[in-house]
This record gives sequence, C-alpha cells and structure tokens, in this order.
Amino acid sequence: MPVTDHFLVRISVLHEELNRALAELDLPETPHYLYAPIRYVNTGQGKRLRPILVRLTGEACGANVADLLNAGLAVELLHNFTLVHDDIMDGDNQRHGQPTVHKQWDESTAILAGDGLFALSQLLLLKVCVNPLKALRRFNEATLAVCEGQGFDKEFEADSAITLDHYLIMIEKKTGNLIGLCAELGAILGDQPEATIQALFNYGLALGKAFQIHDDVLEITADPEIMGKSLGSDIKAGKQTILTILAREKDAGNWGQFCASVDTSDETNLCRAYRNYFESTGVLNQAIANAKQYGRQALDLLEVIPSKSRSVLIEFTDLVLNRKK
Amino acid sequence: MPVTDHFLVRISVLHEELNRALAELDLPETPHYLYAPIRYVNTGQGKRLRPILVRLTGEACGANVADLLNAGLAVELLHNFTLVHDDIMDGDNQRHGQPTVHKQWDESTAILAGDGLFALSQLLLLKVCVNPLKALRRFNEATLAVCEGQGFDKEFEADSAITLDHYLIMIEKKTGNLIGLCAELGAILGDQPEATIQALFNYGLALGKAFQIHDDVLEITADPEIMGKSLGSDIKAGKQTILTILAREKDAGNWGQFCASVDTSDETNLCRAYRNYFESTGVLNQAIANAKQYGRQALDLLEVIPSKSRSVLIEFTDLVLNRKK
Repeated sequence: MPVTDHFLVRISVLHEELNRALAELDLPETPHYLYAPIRYVNTGQGKRLRPILVRLTGEACGANVADLLNAGLAVELLHNFTLVHDDIMDGDNQRHGQPTVHKQWDESTAILAGDGLFALSQLLLLKVCVNPLKALRRFNEATLAVCEGQGFDKEFEADSAITLDHYLIMIEKKTGNLIGLCAELGAILGDQPEATIQALFNYGLALGKAFQIHDDVLEITADPEIMGKSLGSDIKAGKQTILTILAREKDAGNWGQFCASVDTSDETNLCRAYRNYFESTGVLNQAIANAKQYGRQALDLLEVIPSKSRSVLIEFTDLVLNRKK
Repeated sequence: MPVTDHFLVRISVLHEELNRALAELDLPETPHYLYAPIRYVNTGQGKRLRPILVRLTGEACGANVADLLNAGLAVELLHNFTLVHDDIMDGDNQRHGQPTVHKQWDESTAILAGDGLFALSQLLLLKVCVNPLKALRRFNEATLAVCEGQGFDKEFEADSAITLDHYLIMIEKKTGNLIGLCAELGAILGDQPEATIQALFNYGLALGKAFQIHDDVLEITADPEIMGKSLGSDIKAGKQTILTILAREKDAGNWGQFCASVDTSDETNLCRAYRNYFESTGVLNQAIANAKQYGRQALDLLEVIPSKSRSVLIEFTDLVLNRKK
C-alpha cells in the first residue's frame, strides 16, 4: 500500500515539532565540554523515526500528547547516545551528513556526551504521568538489550563462523529492541492491557529487523549523497551484514575468492564491485525477501490495534520499509 | 572522635554483604564482550563506601533493608560506570590494584561495559518499593551533575587560570553529588520530609568535597602499594588538584620554576619532589585544613538526624576523612 500525501504531511509536521523540541531542550550552557556536543547531536539531521513511532502508537492507544512528546524525546536521546558511542567503537567518521562527535571533538568528549545524553533521556522519561515506572523499566531493559546487541556485533566482527541465526539475534537486540520499545511505550502510556503492550513490542521487533536488513542493503545500493555517510564502511570494517553472511552461506568458495581478489584501493569501485557480486549471485534479492518477510510479520502484529487507528501505523511501516536513506 | 571497633566490624560485615551481592548479581553469560568486563568491575576491590553510606543513612531514617541493598547496588554500579569511562578519558591504567577495563580489554569494550553498568544500575534502583520515582529522578540528576563535573575537569586540564573556586565547583559536581545522592537516598527511601532529604544531600556534598581534597592529598602522600594505583598520575597528566592550585595561588613564580626544573624521568623521585615542595611551602597543610573544614561542615549537617541514630554516621564521616587509601 503506497503511503498517502496526508500521512506524509503528518510525518513532516511531527518531524518539525520534534526538531523544535530537541533544539529547545532546557540545557545549561556550561560546561561547554559536555553540552556543546550534546547540542550538536540533538540538532543533527536524524529521521526522528523512533519518537514518531512512539507518537503514532501512543495516539492509537489513547495516550496523552505531553507524555508522548517526553517519551519520544527520551528515546531519541537514548538512540543518539548509542550512536555516539557506537561511532567511536566502529570508527565511523560521518553521521547524518556531519562529522561524528569523536571526529568533531575527540573520543573523551564523545564518551562523556553519550553518558550525558543517557542521563538526560532518563530525566525526560521521568516526566511522563501515566505508568512512569513501567516505562522506565522497559526503557532500561531495552537499553541493556541494545548493549548486548552491540556486544554481539563486536564479537562477530571478522568471525567467519557467524550464521544467519547469529545475525538475526544480534539485530533483534541491537536494532529491534529499541524500535520495539518505541511501539510498546505508546501502549504503556496509553495504559493498555499487557497483551497489547506485548504485541506492539513484537511489532517493533519485527519492524526493527526489517529496518536493519534494509539498512544493510542500502549500505550497498543507496546514493552516498542521500545517505549522508560513506557507504560500504561496515563491510570494509569486517562487520557482518546480512549480505556477507548470505554470500558466505550460499557459496563460501566463490565469496572467499571474490573478497581476496577485489580491489580495495578505490572506495567507489569497491562498493560497485560488492553490489555487482550481491546482485549477480541473488544474495541481494534474498536479503530483500528477508526484509519483506519481517515487514509482513510486523504488519500482522498490528491487528491488535482497532482498525480505525491502524491505517496510520500501516503507513508508517510502509514508509520505514521503503525508505531510500 | 576515633571510630569504635564495634563500628569497624559493622562496616566490614556490610562490605562483605555488598561484595557477595555484587558477585551474585543475576547477569546473563553472553555476550561475553559485554558481561565479562562488567563482572570484572563488579568483583573488583572497591571500598563500597557509597552503598555503605546509603545503608547507614537509610537505617537512621527508617528505610527497609531490601530497598537499601538495591539502592546501594545501584549507586555502586553507577560509580563503577563513571570510573570505567573516566579511566579511558584520563588514560589511567590501574584501578583498585588491577588493570583498568580499557587496559585489560580495549577502549570499545570499556565504553560498552560502562553503558551496560549504567543501564543495570537503573534497573536495580527500579526495584525499590518506597518513593522509586523520586529516587530515580535524583539518581539521574546526580549522574548528570557528575558528567558536568567531569566536563569541567577535562576543561580545566592544563589551564593555569583555574582558581580554587573553579576547583571547588568541579569537585562538588564530580565527587560531591554522588556522595550527596547516597546520603539523600537513605532519607528518600525512609520517606523523610524534604528538609531531612536536603540536609543529608548537603551533608554528602560537604563530605564529598572533603573526600576529594583528601584524595588529592593521598595522591602525593600515600603508599602506592596501599592505594593500588600509581601515584602522582593526576599531576603528571596536567590535572588540577587542590595542591597544584594552592601552590600556584600562593606563589606562582616559585611553583612555575619548580615545575620547569623537576626531573620527570623517575616516577618515585617525581612524587617525592612534589611532596617535598607541597610540604615545605605549607600547601599540603592548607589543603588538609580545607578538607577538615568541609568535614566539620558535614558533621554539623548531621544534626538533622536524631541523636540516637547519629553516632554511626559520625563514625562513618570520621572513617572517610581519615582513610589511608
């Protein structure tokens, strides 16, 4: 189902509202060492998909808007905290079209900025009026799962024994849990029964897995100008993506030969060579089929939402699954 | 007032109880990348002063023991999280007589372990039954203050315009706020009136400042074997300690000359030379007098506690102010 113009306008309005709220967060001026990078991160060009998901599920569940805004800001700061620290660990130099914090400043600054963002995110979530304790418990459980996912991701680097199942557990923790949290926060703040909360969490888990697989695909197929970051960096860094794992599982010999012979001196050529390989071997299509499968799973789980409120969440799901960046 | 044997036995019992609880924390086995360093940190040789303070103030305020244990574990994990990240930022290689996490593993591992400890600390505090929301709000406000203190500390490095006032603001945030939190958590979990909570927080702030000044003094005067870390490292790293600031404020010319001429090739000699300088110029005694002043301020603030429960907190204060490591 294609998304409607009405829906796109709504997303754009929410995006603007969130950007304004992030820019207007009441933060002290000093120490600059802490707050300058936090401001830099908060006013970066994120897609705000996570707080938008909190808002849309929350409205479908009858939550109040003030709570949804605070919880949305909390998950956005939490997300940014994990990105700032992950970028150090992964040595990534660009994010949302600008230098990462540890590049713009240094690693110590980035470590501390991430810590401050995490503390601020908790304080924002503490402002919600409905079920704050349940929200906070799930918020921190999800954060721990994200840390576990990053731990697996680091363990898996350059480990050629990693299977598709390992990969799926890793992305479920690293990406799925945070998106699952966003969806379930809407239900928690709407004081919904446990079954609804759980179904929406599972919706987010499936959507998160589809999102991450799609991300791996975009890393190889997207326009670097649109993505705002250099492409192919995960593969170059020896990270496992669904494409490298499927390529190895499909035909380890061929894949090994390709990796040994590919010219790594030119980044654009390297990316093109990988893309050609994944396309010609059917690996790319298989990954896309995997993403679609989790997308369908996510849509099925939305049945828990009454049909009149469901369409906007279906459109959101489609938007995420078809994004170009 | 010298501390009694009865009190020392009590502290030792609480220390053992906390070590056991830390070792028995219910943590998953995998990913090892995340949980091996977290276990390593939790079973390190910390003094457990912060959770003991939570326990002692909490008992004086009528809080229940289960809440005090959970809150104590939460502040200990929070404290360890800040140490793990600070050790990366400050390039410290030893902590509690063993290699720091980033030395034992690497920086990425240490960043993630700190993040995981912070999330776990929130989950532990979420277990308390009395006033959990107030406890969590103060927990995260104090964490943000600690981050601000670390931000100032990094800004002040090698900045020779830093005054004693700057330094006092920095240590109030970096060290005072966490110890203040510990004292006030006892009152919050004991459901005490706001005035008691505030007085105990201020007690901890003053105690924390005395503690940090004493720490700066120990860095120069203690036995490195007892401290379990290399001494003089802060000064060598260009960090401001109360000794360097007082030396500069007292006689910048002499101090500048001393720093320019001191032999930095031998660590033991370097430490001895600094010590001689601070002793002969009266700087060391002035710093000790400063610590004592904050110690008295802390003791005065304990008047808020009924006299029959007060003596154990007075003994705790004396223990902290006279510690040898």
